[in-house]
Amino acid sequence: MTAMLRVGVLASGSGTNLAALIAAQQDGRLGAEIAAVICNVPGARALQRAREAGIPAILVDHKAHPSRETFEAEIDRHLQAHGVGLVVLAGFMRILSPWFVSRWQGRIVNVHPALLPSFPGLHAARQALQAGVRITGCTVHLVDEGTDTGPILAQAAVPVLPGDDEASLHARVQKEEHRLLPWVVRLFAEGRIRVEEGRPILDLPEAAWAQASLRNPEPGEP
Amino acid sequence: MTAMLRVGVLASGSGTNLAALIAAQQDGRLGAEIAAVICNVPGARALQRAREAGIPAILVDHKAHPSRETFEAEIDRHLQAHGVGLVVLAGFMRILSPWFVSRWQGRIVNVHPALLPSFPGLHAARQALQAGVRITGCTVHLVDEGTDTGPILAQAAVPVLPGDDEASLHARVQKEEHRLLPWVVRLFAEGRIRVEEGRPILDLPEAAWAQASLRNPEPGEP
Repeated sequence: MTAMLRVGVLASGSGTNLAALIAAQQDGRLGAEIAAVICNVPGARALQRAREAGIPAILVDHKAHPSRETFEAEIDRHLQAHGVGLVVLAGFMRILSPWFVSRWQGRIVNVHPALLPSFPGLHAARQALQAGVRITGCTVHLVDEGTDTGPILAQAAVPVLPGDDEASLHARVQKEEHRLLPWVVRLFAEGRIRVEEGRPILDLPEAAWAQASLRNPEPGEP
Repeated sequence: MTAMLRVGVLASGSGTNLAALIAAQQDGRLGAEIAAVICNVPGARALQRAREAGIPAILVDHKAHPSRETFEAEIDRHLQAHGVGLVVLAGFMRILSPWFVSRWQGRIVNVHPALLPSFPGLHAARQALQAGVRITGCTVHLVDEGTDTGPILAQAAVPVLPGDDEASLHARVQKEEHRLLPWVVRLFAEGRIRVEEGRPILDLPEAAWAQASLRNPEPGEP
């Protein structure tokens, strides 16, 4: 029997993507086990969510470290100690060094609230509203040394509606993040993601692929 | 009785978006009348399509003009002579001058085969494939003095599928263009588009809005 993929989640805040991963694990949709949640902010809701789910919740406070090197080395030690095979950045607000990124190359993913390459960086929903787009969405991508530049694994689109403000649009995008991120983790767990010449190849039927990418909101959805 | 909106179409090539507009007019879905098709390339398929549909087909060959000014002035004269209220760029491959654009400000639209602001300019499908996105689409926007930078009116998303090459992806995007462009012309014809402080406001129910933007492909669609 093959061991189940063990996932390490890095978070800084409320951890709604963590909550989606936990829910997927509890429903048997994740195909993987969340082995540890590491958070750099004392008292963050993400830590509480992990504890409530019986998942090791580890505080690694960047302010308690003399340098980024020692901060990241401590995170790395915890990931290794918990046998992590895939790192998920779920609202983790620290820039990771090339050392850390290369150490986890091909095994570290981020979720971004826009259809990259549009609107990288902070306040993606605000950027989308300012640009006046009619469609935005979210992206799950492999992490490289840039900011939101790594190879794209999956995307989901949502409409921008006439009455939207930043909060309502971000909520609609997050709902798709919460659907897309566990799906990508499952693809990793099932060995369906491989990288060839720097480009990720997903092994799944075209119909499933299209359906995962593009889904109409249900009536009454935000 | 209010006169029906008269549309002038500028094209350079095969005119598949023109064909979609003609089909919509013939089905009564356009809510507007294509008053003239102006083409800058002798023998282009777009001219033939117009003639076959009984629409005035006008060649304005840029190579026969000493300058862009006289070329555009001739186009403008034809548009005025045909009582055009809305100009549609449907694969028109000449850059329009600020003079022409300001003359038709708020009444000239372009369709671009990408989800702007991603992938402006030429070869949008190729750009999308090179960027490795999982979702692309098309944009109908008001024309301003930049290249594919004007205020966005409507967008539609399509998935990028694993086996796609530039041709297959472009075909899937074009199919959405052919749906979206006549819909936007109809909104103009119904007076549902106004511009406030440089931002277009579309007057239609949210449900129609979302449905128009984001639509799953039917089974068996390309």
